[in-house]
Amino acid sequence: MKDANLTLKAHTEHQTLVNISPSVTVGGDDLLIVGGPCTVESLEQMQQVATHLASAPVQALRGGVYKPRTSPYAFQGHGEAGLRILDEVRQAWQVPVVSEVMAIHQIESMLAHVDVLQVGSRNMQNFDLLRALGQTDKPILLKRGLAATIEEFVMAAEYIVSHGNPNVMLCERGIRSFDTYTRNVLDLGAVVALKQLSHLPVIVDPSHAAGKRELVPNLAKAAIAAGADGLIIECHPVPEASVSDARQALSLEDMVTLVHSLRPIAAAVGRRIPEAGSIRQPVLV
Amino acid sequence: MKDANLTLKAHTEHQTLVNISPSVTVGGDDLLIVGGPCTVESLEQMQQVATHLASAPVQALRGGVYKPRTSPYAFQGHGEAGLRILDEVRQAWQVPVVSEVMAIHQIESMLAHVDVLQVGSRNMQNFDLLRALGQTDKPILLKRGLAATIEEFVMAAEYIVSHGNPNVMLCERGIRSFDTYTRNVLDLGAVVALKQLSHLPVIVDPSHAAGKRELVPNLAKAAIAAGADGLIIECHPVPEASVSDARQALSLEDMVTLVHSLRPIAAAVGRRIPEAGSIRQPVLV
Amino acid sequence: MKDANLTLKAHTEHQTLVNISPSVTVGGDDLLIVGGPCTVESLEQMQQVATHLASAPVQALRGGVYKPRTSPYAFQGHGEAGLRILDEVRQAWQVPVVSEVMAIHQIESMLAHVDVLQVGSRNMQNFDLLRALGQTDKPILLKRGLAATIEEFVMAAEYIVSHGNPNVMLCERGIRSFDTYTRNVLDLGAVVALKQLSHLPVIVDPSHAAGKRELVPNLAKAAIAAGADGLIIECHPVPEASVSDARQALSLEDMVTLVHSLRPIAAAVGRRIPEAGSIRQPVLV
Amino acid sequence: MKDANLTLKAHTEHQTLVNISPSVTVGGDDLLIVGGPCTVESLEQMQQVATHLASAPVQALRGGVYKPRTSPYAFQGHGEAGLRILDEVRQAWQVPVVSEVMAIHQIESMLAHVDVLQVGSRNMQNFDLLRALGQTDKPILLKRGLAATIEEFVMAAEYIVSHGNPNVMLCERGIRSFDTYTRNVLDLGAVVALKQLSHLPVIVDPSHAAGKRELVPNLAKAAIAAGADGLIIECHPVPEASVSDARQALSLEDMVTLVHSLRPIAAAVGRRIPEAGSIRQPVLV
Repeated sequence: MKDANLTLKAHTEHQTLVNISPSVTVGGDDLLIVGGPCTVESLEQMQQVATHLASAPVQALRGGVYKPRTSPYAFQGHGEAGLRILDEVRQAWQVPVVSEVMAIHQIESMLAHVDVLQVGSRNMQNFDLLRALGQTDKPILLKRGLAATIEEFVMAAEYIVSHGNPNVMLCERGIRSFDTYTRNVLDLGAVVALKQLSHLPVIVDPSHAAGKRELVPNLAKAAIAAGADGLIIECHPVPEASVSDARQALSLEDMVTLVHSLRPIAAAVGRRIPEAGSIRQPVLV
Repeated sequence: MKDANLTLKAHTEHQTLVNISPSVTVGGDDLLIVGGPCTVESLEQMQQVATHLASAPVQALRGGVYKPRTSPYAFQGHGEAGLRILDEVRQAWQVPVVSEVMAIHQIESMLAHVDVLQVGSRNMQNFDLLRALGQTDKPILLKRGLAATIEEFVMAAEYIVSHGNPNVMLCERGIRSFDTYTRNVLDLGAVVALKQLSHLPVIVDPSHAAGKRELVPNLAKAAIAAGADGLIIECHPVPEASVSDARQALSLEDMVTLVHSLRPIAAAVGRRIPEAGSIRQPVLV
Repeated sequence: MKDANLTLKAHTEHQTLVNISPSVTVGGDDLLIVGGPCTVESLEQMQQVATHLASAPVQALRGGVYKPRTSPYAFQGHGEAGLRILDEVRQAWQVPVVSEVMAIHQIESMLAHVDVLQVGSRNMQNFDLLRALGQTDKPILLKRGLAATIEEFVMAAEYIVSHGNPNVMLCERGIRSFDTYTRNVLDLGAVVALKQLSHLPVIVDPSHAAGKRELVPNLAKAAIAAGADGLIIECHPVPEASVSDARQALSLEDMVTLVHSLRPIAAAVGRRIPEAGSIRQPVLV
Repeated sequence: MKDANLTLKAHTEHQTLVNISPSVTVGGDDLLIVGGPCTVESLEQMQQVATHLASAPVQALRGGVYKPRTSPYAFQGHGEAGLRILDEVRQAWQVPVVSEVMAIHQIESMLAHVDVLQVGSRNMQNFDLLRALGQTDKPILLKRGLAATIEEFVMAAEYIVSHGNPNVMLCERGIRSFDTYTRNVLDLGAVVALKQLSHLPVIVDPSHAAGKRELVPNLAKAAIAAGADGLIIECHPVPEASVSDARQALSLEDMVTLVHSLRPIAAAVGRRIPEAGSIRQPVLV
C-alpha cells in the first residue's frame, strides 16, 4: 500500500473530518448515524421516515433513487423523480441526505440535490466514475467491493482523493463468503485496520452485511466498539412492504430504540451520538 | 434465473453464433483462440505478436489500451494512441482485435477501431456501461466479476442483450478464493453450467485465472475439454519485460506450441481449431 | 513449501506409482477410474454396481461404510457390516475397493477388507489419523480440505509419507466458494500445480465438486485434460434412491457412457483408459 | 438446522451456564476472559504469565501442549511435559486452564490436568473425537472450522451434546477469505446469530482472527459489544520470542491494559468483567 500517499495516515493522530452539512461533521468525536430506506418510494414514505428519525436521532437520511439491480427487469429506482422527493425532505427538515450515484451522467443533478454521494460495492473499481467524483468537492461514501481487499479499497479511495476531492468516507458493508446464513460477512477486522492505516472516516453498514434485521442491532454496537466513525442503517415505515431488501430493514420504532442503545457503547469508546440529531421538524410540510 | 429470458436457452440445441469478423464466427465447431499481450505497448510489439501468432494460428489478437489498475498512479494504458496501433495491425494483418472498454466515453472511438469490446471483471455490474454497450451491435466479451455468482453473470449479460445487442460472449477468468498459489481459481464448473444454461458462447481466460504462465497450457486444455467455445491467452514477445501481468504471459513461441497441442483435445470433444487462423501476412507493413 | 521434502518432486520427471492391486497401478500412463455409490447400502446394490461397471470399465469400486455427516442424527453408514459387503464384492469380482476411514480404531479392520483408504476433506488435517495411516503401507487417497491451500494439502500428505507410507494419492474435490449453483468449485488450477510440484498421483472427484450429475461428465473430461492421474465418480443403480448425495450420482448407464467418452481425451494428452478394466465377472456369486 | 434439538434454544431466554471451575461460570453476566500463550514453552514462562495476568484480571489461562501444525517437521508441542507445567501453575494459582486436545488417546490424561478441552478448527468435524468428548463431562471449547457454516458449527456441537456432554462453548475465531491483510475474517455476524440460535455460550478469539496484535484490542471490544460471552486472547511475556504465532500475541502489559479497557464496553451491554479474576497468588511457588 506504499502508493496510497493521500489516503494513508502521515502520523498516528492524522484524521480527516468530512463536513456533510453545516452542522454535521464526520470523523470527530460525534458519530454519524444515517438511517432510511433502501429505496425512495414516495414523498409520504420519506416524510414518515424523517418525522420518526428526528427522535432517533440521526444525523442524515439515506434513500436510493438509482438502484443497482442484478436483473435488468427489476425496479431500477425512481431516478430524477426520487431525487426531487429527497430534496424536498432534505430542505423541509434541514437534514443532509445520502444517495447512490451509479453513473457519470447522474452526477450533475445529484450534486444539486444530495449531500453525500454513495458509490456502491459494484462500482468500487469503476475508475471512470471515481475520477469524475474526484473532480467534485462533494462528500463521497465509498462502499467496499464484495470481494475487495483492504488494499484495493484504500486504492479506490486514492483514485478519488488524487483527482482532487479529499472528502471521502470508507464504508465496510460485508464481504462475500461461503456461508448463506448471513447475506455477507461484516469484516470488522478491516474496520480496525482501516482506522489504523487511513485518516479517512470509516462508516459501517450492518444492514447489507447481515441481510437479516434481527442481526443488525448487535452488529451496529460491535461496529462502534471496533472504532467506526458512523453507521448507515436501513429502516422503513413498513419493512415487509419495502420494494427492496425488505428482510434487512428495521422498523422506524426499532431504529429509534437502536440509536438510544448505542449511546453507552459510544461513550465506552470515547465517542458520542449527538442528543439532538440534525433533523429539524419543519414548520410546514 | 427465471428472469434471464434472453440469455437462457430456449431448448437444448439453442446456440448463438457471434461473428467477430467476416471470417471468424464464435460458438460453432471452430474454437476461438485469442492471443496477445496484456497491454499494447508499441507498434513494434504488436507487429511482432501478429507476425508470430499468424502461425499459432489464432483467430484474433488482444491488447489493452485502457487498463484497469488498482493504483491511480500505475500506468493506465496508451489510450487513443494505443487504439491507433491496434487498428494499424488489425488492418495490415486483417485480423480482428479485442480490447477492453472501461467507460462510456470510450465506446465511440473503440467502435471504429476494435472488433470485440471486452468488459472487465471490475465492470461486470457497471450497469450504465452495460446498457450503453447494449445499444451497439458490436460483439462484447463480458468477463465474470471476481466474486460474481453464475446467476449474476448471466444477468449482467441479460442487461446487454435486453438493451438490443445479442452479440455477447461470456468469459470465465477465475474467481477469488483463499489460496494465493494461483492468482484466482478457474471455475470450469461454471463453464459447464453456463454452456447448459445459456445459448451464448463461453470463452475462458486461463492466464488471469492462473497468474503463472506454467499453469496456463494445461488449464487451456481443460477449458476446451469442459466445453468452452474459445480461449483468450496472454502472450508477449518478451514476457518478463511486459509492463503488466508479466508473470502470467507466455512467450510467443510457447503460445504457438500451446495452440498446436490443443488440436487433439478439440478433436476429442468434436471441435476444431482452424488450420489457417485469421491472420493474413501483410504485403507491406 | 520448502519443508515438504518427501512430497515435492526432486526433478521434473519424478513420479510415484502407487499399486492399489496386483493389476492396477496409479500414476503411469493408465488412468485410474473409480466408480461406485456414495454409500454401501446392500450387497445387492454393490453387485449391481460391480456387474455394470465391469463394462465401463473401471479399475476400482468405491463405497462408503463410515460416513461423515454434518448431523449426528443422519445415517452414519453400515460400518463393519458394510465392510463385509465391500469385501465380498471385492473378492468375487477381484476388483480393488476404496472406502473412507474416519478414525484410528477403524484402521485395523479396514486394512483387511479395503485396498485404498480414503481420508475425507474434514479429516485432511486430522494429524493423529494421518500419522497412524503413515504407519501402514496401504494406499491412501487424501482428499483436499474444503478450504485447504495447496501448501496445506501437500503438507498433509507429507505427514503420511514422513511417517513411513509413500503410497499417497492426492484428491482434488472442490473448494468452498460464494456460489451456490455448484456445490463446490473444482480447482483444476490446483491439479495442474500439484502435478508440477509433487511426484504423487493426483486424482479428481468431479461429483462432490459439482454436486449436480449433469455437470460431472464435462468436468471429468476437463480433469483428464488438466493432467489428472484418475477420477473418482459417484454412480448408483437408482441415483434418486441413493441414501446420500443423490443429486450428484450418475446412473450406471451414464457412467459407462462417460468412461467411453473419456478415451479420446485421455489419448489427446498421452494417457490411456485400459480396455479391460479390472473387474472380473465372478464364476459364482 | 431443524435437527439440532439439543443445541438450539427452546425459548428466547434459554441459556446454558458452563462451570469451568468452582468459581468461574460462563454464559451469565460475568464475561470469561482467557489469556495466555499459544504454546506452553516452560514453567517459568507460565509462571510469568500467571503472575502478570492475576492483575488483568483473567478468569482462566490458556496454553497449548499439543499443537496442530501444518508441517510435520514444525514443533508439535511439549505434550505430557507441557501438561505437567500447566497443571503445576493451575494448582499453585488455583486458576482453570484451557488446552487443545487433538486426539482421543490424549483425552484421559488431559481430563486430569486441564479444566477446559479445546477442539481446534481443523478438528471441528473430527466426529470421532467429538463423540469421545461427548462421553466426558469436561467443558469443551469448540472452535469453528476455517470454512464451516453456522449450521455445520451448530451441528458439530450437537455431536458432543447428543453423546452426553452438555458443557459446550462455541468459539468464533475467524473464517478464511480472499484478503491476506488479516489472517482470517472475524465473523461477528455469526456470533450474533449463534447467540440468537443457541443456548450455548459463545466465545471469541480475536487473536487468530486478526493475526496481528495491533488489531486485537478493538476486535475484542467489538466481540463483547456483539454479545459474546467471553474472549480468548493470546499473550506472551516476550511476544516476538513466542515459538508460534508471535505476530498476534500481546505483551502481558498490553493484555492487562486491554482487559481494563473492556470494562466500560461490558457495562454498556449489561455484562461484567469480575474485579478479582480467578487467579490466586500462590503462597509458595
